[in-house]
Formats: sequence, C-alpha cells, structure tokens
Amino acid sequence: MTETVVLKLGGSVITDKSGECAIDHARLHEVAEELAVRRDSALVLVHGAGSCGHPEARRYRVNDGLTGENVPGVYETHAAVSSLNAAVVDALRDAGVEAIGIHPLDLALAQDGRLVSFETRHIAEMTEHGIVPVLHGDVVMDRLRGSCIVSGDQLVTHLAAALASRRVGLATDVAGVLRNGSVVPRIDRSIVKTLDVGGSGNTDVTGGMQGKIAELLALADAGIDSHIFHVSKIGRFLDGTGHGGTIIGRGMP
Amino acid sequence: MTETVVLKLGGSVITDKSGECAIDHARLHEVAEELAVRRDSALVLVHGAGSCGHPEARRYRVNDGLTGENVPGVYETHAAVSSLNAAVVDALRDAGVEAIGIHPLDLALAQDGRLVSFETRHIAEMTEHGIVPVLHGDVVMDRLRGSCIVSGDQLVTHLAAALASRRVGLATDVAGVLRNGSVVPRIDRSIVKTLDVGGSGNTDVTGGMQGKIAELLALADAGIDSHIFHVSKIGRFLDGTGHGGTIIGRGMP
Repeated sequence: MTETVVLKLGGSVITDKSGECAIDHARLHEVAEELAVRRDSALVLVHGAGSCGHPEARRYRVNDGLTGENVPGVYETHAAVSSLNAAVVDALRDAGVEAIGIHPLDLALAQDGRLVSFETRHIAEMTEHGIVPVLHGDVVMDRLRGSCIVSGDQLVTHLAAALASRRVGLATDVAGVLRNGSVVPRIDRSIVKTLDVGGSGNTDVTGGMQGKIAELLALADAGIDSHIFHVSKIGRFLDGTGHGGTIIGRGMP
Repeated sequence: MTETVVLKLGGSVITDKSGECAIDHARLHEVAEELAVRRDSALVLVHGAGSCGHPEARRYRVNDGLTGENVPGVYETHAAVSSLNAAVVDALRDAGVEAIGIHPLDLALAQDGRLVSFETRHIAEMTEHGIVPVLHGDVVMDRLRGSCIVSGDQLVTHLAAALASRRVGLATDVAGVLRNGSVVPRIDRSIVKTLDVGGSGNTDVTGGMQGKIAELLALADAGIDSHIFHVSKIGRFLDGTGHGGTIIGRGMP
C-alpha cells in the first residue's frame, strides 16, 4: 500500500476571512494543479471553514450546544461550509483529481467538543482506489452539548492517527509558526511554553494557531510529526523537499 | 423519549423513473406539508434514488465493484442522488421541517453489498433536537468489491433496528404489495413463497419489490413490523389510522 498523506488547506488560504463565504477560486485552482501532477501517494484532504461557516457558527453559537432556539444553526453552518467543500471538490475534479466530498456532520459523534466516533475505513478504501476524500471543519452532533464545532485541525489529527499517516501537512497563509517575525523550525512540548503565538484576528471559533499547535502536539505524542508551511510550498511538501516551515514533533526523550 | 418513526419515500414516488433525474417537486411539496403538520414523533426520512443515480449506477456498474476504469462512477452516482436529496431537504425546510441531508457514502462501510458499519447515534441525537435526518439510497465503499449500492430499503431496515423504531413505513406509488391487482394485507415468511411479485419495469439496481420484501422480512425477524402503502396515505400512517396497504411482520409462532 502507498503512503497516505493527510493535507489540510487552512480556511484563510481558500477564503477571504474578512468577507462572508468569499471563496478564493483562483487559489483553489492553483492548489488543484499542484495536487493533480503529484498522484503517487494516497491523499486525504481536509480544509478549514474560513469565512464559510465560521460566521454562522458564531451567530447561532452552535459550539456552545443546542438550546432549542439555535437548532437551525446546525443546518445553516453546515450548508455554508458544504458550499465551500463543493467548490474545493469542483476545482480538484476540473484539474483531473478524483475528489469526493465527505461531510463530518454525516458521520461524526462528539462528546464535549471531541470526536468519539468517526469511521475512517471507508476513507481508506477510497484512497486505495485513487479517490481523494475531501473533508472539512464542520458542526457535528455532540452527545453532551447537542452540537459542537470540529475543526479541520482536529480532523487532521484524527485521520492521521486512524490512517497511520507518516506525512501530515498544513498549508496556511503564513510561512510557518512565527516568533518575532521568524519561522520557528521545530516545536515540541519542551519549547512550546516559551512561544508567544498570537490568535487569529478574524472570525474563528476553533482556536486559531494555538488550537492548531495543541492538536498537532497531541499527534506528535502518538509519534506522528506534522508540517506547517505556506500554501505556495505544497508541491515541495509533497515532494519531500524543504518547505521552510515548522515541524511539530515529539521532544527528545 | 418520543417514538422514532422511520419513513421511506420510494424513488418512484418523488421522481419520474422514465426520465433522467426528473424530480417531482410538486409531490415533494405535498409530502413536506403532510410531515410539517405532524411533528409529535421523532422522524427519520429515507428516500430512494429513482431516476437520479440509478442510470449512473447502471452505466458505471458501481454495484459490481471498482475496476479502475469505473471509479468516476462513484462520484457521478453519488452526485446525482445527492442532488435529489438536496431537493427533498429544500422542500421540507420550505414547509418548516428542520431537515438535514445525510449521505450514506460519507459514513457507510459495506461488505459484499451489506452494511457492516453505519453509525446512527448522531442520527438519534439529531431527532432528539427536532432535526429530521434525510438519508438516501447511495453508492458506498465496499471492502470486498470496492463499491456497491445500498438501497433505501436496506437503510430503512438498518435504521429501524439501530434506532429501535416501532413505526416503519414505506410510501410507494402503489397501494401496497399487490397480488392479482389486490393489496395483500399482511405478509410473513410463511406466505411470501406463495406470492408472485413482479419486478420494477424501470431502471432499478436494487431489486424492486422483491428486494424490498426480503429486506422487510429480515426486519420482521427482528420483531419490527413495517408498512407499505400509497404515498397519499402518509398522513394516515403517521396518525396510526388505516392506510389500506400491506403490513410485513413476523409469522405466527
């Protein structure tokens, strides 16, 4: 079996976060072309919600649970991010990638904001037939709160662990994790406390860069390194050459 | 907890099976109005593919498994039936029903045409918050064949058993199971062999009426009766009054 790559496209990369569901179609087509010419690995794609879904999630407070009044927020949030997912899948298929969208709301069960059930064997089966499953941050049902938001980052860590991926990449709109304007080349638990990482300036209910690092450190604990780099370096990440970004891994024992 | 009703709308009921994805929007709105005025039970809706998906499934032979060449058939079949699902959800929401579409491809794993993994706890959680999950017959990944078709009828039996439903209804374009032009009021395993039930005359890769009865007899074995009736009788089925159709149940011990 070929190696499985889990690649996340940040919401800021594929939407304009200052607008409301302003999809960057030109960027999507650039990314799709990069992926279309590199088809030697099994690939699972995850994308953030960006400005599609975050505004609805915040408006209806679906991450705080269901009260009765905010139940329509499940549909509204899901519909917004699903429309972004359709645009990602369309761009990939236009470039010749056999992409299929998978919506976390349809399969996930969470408890207090964390996934407790999320089947991945059908996703592995897809990759074995050359299909690229495309998942996304989504509202999902939560047996404690009613509903919650599962971020693309939480999905990346769950998928990478379940699919035993050794290549996990997160394409963002910055060059990596920054400290004083410079990329931090490697982060592990021993140095993370010395970092002062800023939050996202835009609407993001999933924790921004700090949330991302926390997810990826948990993945590193399980022995899986991950890579954060600028979206323009996707080709270099897939080729295994230097991407100039940050590697999040396990500390020295 | 309120009683969970599992209701299936046959593909022939909501599409014109002689066309290609010819959705009967007028019928959908009639059904939606019936459901909107009866909201006292938890409801899970399933619909067939009708003329949306069956032609693609047949063209690509996705029920026979994946060969490499027919892989695009997974997307094409799924996209066709998903477009029907969107129309069903839209009609329900227009009528004030808090409907959300759930796509089986996103969560199911099958083996040789039968579901072996299909989470339902999030579906139960939805119904507890007044959401009506709307599922559909779909192509799904199959760990033996690569892909297969899971019919709406197989979904009905799986959901009814998993959700411990005591009210299972299948709305069709005929009055029930017919013998010599008359409705057979009750079917169990002891009399099914004496019935000569015709197949569907249109494109249907899921076995038509014979496949439906086989699914529902398996459900009856598990102690759950099901009802087959004309779509115009949905209100009477939900109200628990006579629908003039066929009940499929367990034989006398």
